[in-house]
Amino acid sequence: MSQAKVLVTGVAGFIGSHVAERCINAGMTVVGVDDLSGGFRRNVPAGVRFVQGDLTDRALVRSLWADEGPFEVVYHLAAFAAEGLSHQARLHNYSINLLATAGLINAAVNGRTRHFVFASSIAVYGTGQLPLREDAAPHPEDPYGIAKYACELDLEAAAATYDMGFTIFRPHNVYGERQNLADPHRNVIAIFLRQCLAGEPMSVFGDGHQTRAFTHVDDVAPLIARAPLVSGARNATFNIGRDEAVRVIDLAHAVASAVGVPARIQHLSARPEVVHAVSDHSRVELAFGVQSSVTLAQGLSMMAKWARSLEIAPLKRFDRLEITAAPARPT
Amino acid sequence: MSQAKVLVTGVAGFIGSHVAERCINAGMTVVGVDDLSGGFRRNVPAGVRFVQGDLTDRALVRSLWADEGPFEVVYHLAAFAAEGLSHQARLHNYSINLLATAGLINAAVNGRTRHFVFASSIAVYGTGQLPLREDAAPHPEDPYGIAKYACELDLEAAAATYDMGFTIFRPHNVYGERQNLADPHRNVIAIFLRQCLAGEPMSVFGDGHQTRAFTHVDDVAPLIARAPLVSGARNATFNIGRDEAVRVIDLAHAVASAVGVPARIQHLSARPEVVHAVSDHSRVELAFGVQSSVTLAQGLSMMAKWARSLEIAPLKRFDRLEITAAPARPT
Repeated sequence: MSQAKVLVTGVAGFIGSHVAERCINAGMTVVGVDDLSGGFRRNVPAGVRFVQGDLTDRALVRSLWADEGPFEVVYHLAAFAAEGLSHQARLHNYSINLLATAGLINAAVNGRTRHFVFASSIAVYGTGQLPLREDAAPHPEDPYGIAKYACELDLEAAAATYDMGFTIFRPHNVYGERQNLADPHRNVIAIFLRQCLAGEPMSVFGDGHQTRAFTHVDDVAPLIARAPLVSGARNATFNIGRDEAVRVIDLAHAVASAVGVPARIQHLSARPEVVHAVSDHSRVELAFGVQSSVTLAQGLSMMAKWARSLEIAPLKRFDRLEITAAPARPT
Repeated sequence: MSQAKVLVTGVAGFIGSHVAERCINAGMTVVGVDDLSGGFRRNVPAGVRFVQGDLTDRALVRSLWADEGPFEVVYHLAAFAAEGLSHQARLHNYSINLLATAGLINAAVNGRTRHFVFASSIAVYGTGQLPLREDAAPHPEDPYGIAKYACELDLEAAAATYDMGFTIFRPHNVYGERQNLADPHRNVIAIFLRQCLAGEPMSVFGDGHQTRAFTHVDDVAPLIARAPLVSGARNATFNIGRDEAVRVIDLAHAVASAVGVPARIQHLSARPEVVHAVSDHSRVELAFGVQSSVTLAQGLSMMAKWARSLEIAPLKRFDRLEITAAPARPT
């Protein structure tokens, strides 16, 4: 396994680049693919053989296997991840998040891939009972969560039919170095960080008393990279992330402190969102024998240091909305 | 409503053509679309304005609404329905069964469609507890069922977000006039009927003691057509079909009898399939106030009479398989 050739999709993105780095460090031969729609060439770790391309392009997938494969493991991290926009971008969402995954699963099955690792999301749960547990029946409520759940089911079906191993992770609120700071549609920590660096007030929806458990990428990427080697992770699905719930308003102060600026807050109207989101992590801790270890202060400090080294790129709004009708309820 | 303009997809197909006919009879203005991949132009009922086209083609969907719309109701019956093949045709399946649906939902939302009726399938349940009930959490196990379930969830999400009404039907084992007799991949009654007419033995997998509840299309189409008018059917999901379970071996004898030929049976190796499949129909009976009424003998008699009037077309095998690897278990 240490010399295995593996494919990492979304390798120029946030979590994908960290997973690829862990694979390189473990001695694997890593081919990475990314269309650079949300990622950056600079994120691709040294040692990765990089292919630029779009996974919805069947010819690209064919050539990946023909020219670079076969792959013992596929780590599929590429996605269109702006969950909140997915109501207005159904076709874009299903094309990138489901069709591309199905094409990779086809190629993995045909190419005798041994293990397929998929990054799903807690979005599959919908508004379920807290804490979110892996044995609850998912009921996703937006196209992003629906696509992720369909991928999970498809991977299970393919694995059972063609005897391929799989591991599914449902991470939540991951932050850290290499996260896209130019995306206004997601990732509250990246948004706050950008606002602090730009000298703008941080935009908090409602009173900011809603809580989330923020997870540094160093608590996520190593487990994803190791999954094919962990016997208890074969054909299993895991919540992954930190337990400690933090109020968004307290997060804002912590980000300002990490950047070293006074916390300036602009309260915006509350959005319809889950007030508290907590996942149960006992299953992943049992299988992998580890717990999350990076505190919010530590993680924010590392991320702020990294962000200071960057030029702040202009915000890049999504401009491919498919729905023109106004929603009856905010999305 | 009786003068409403409605869109019926899959209008040249089996159930779609019957639904369109019921809509015409109720005084609606019906636009019907079909790509004729599995349907026949002769199935399109008189009075339907027919558009030939592929719903995965975004330009076709745009022009449908621009040239023929808006539609007060969309009846979405078009599908790639060869469930058993879907393991080997993931991209084809998700493209036709999910992407096309998502594109129609976009257009319906943008065009202020009042009610969206969707033909799902009992394939969403997977191997659940019998009888299959609508309040059970689905866990589909093949790409066909996964796509159907993703469509259901997407429709629910769109309806809640944009205040559109919807009704979802999960029919099972529907047979009757206008069913495709040239598809070797599905519909046991159509296959037996064709074999009887061609003077071939009927192919029964295993001992034929597996049971199914076969449902004549006249017990299905009227309810689908009426759904937007039934208050208890708004934003609801229904199993639909007949209760009476019949052994496949007994079905073979009944088909031969309807055709008026001696029953000749060829037993093939058993396939991995559900032995007994029974749906609970109390919800649909309560909302629509009707029960299925066409007995198997009556339905087979009508279908055999219709089939005798046709020239038997050559079998048309599906030739776009995406998986070349052999399955670890039969599909």
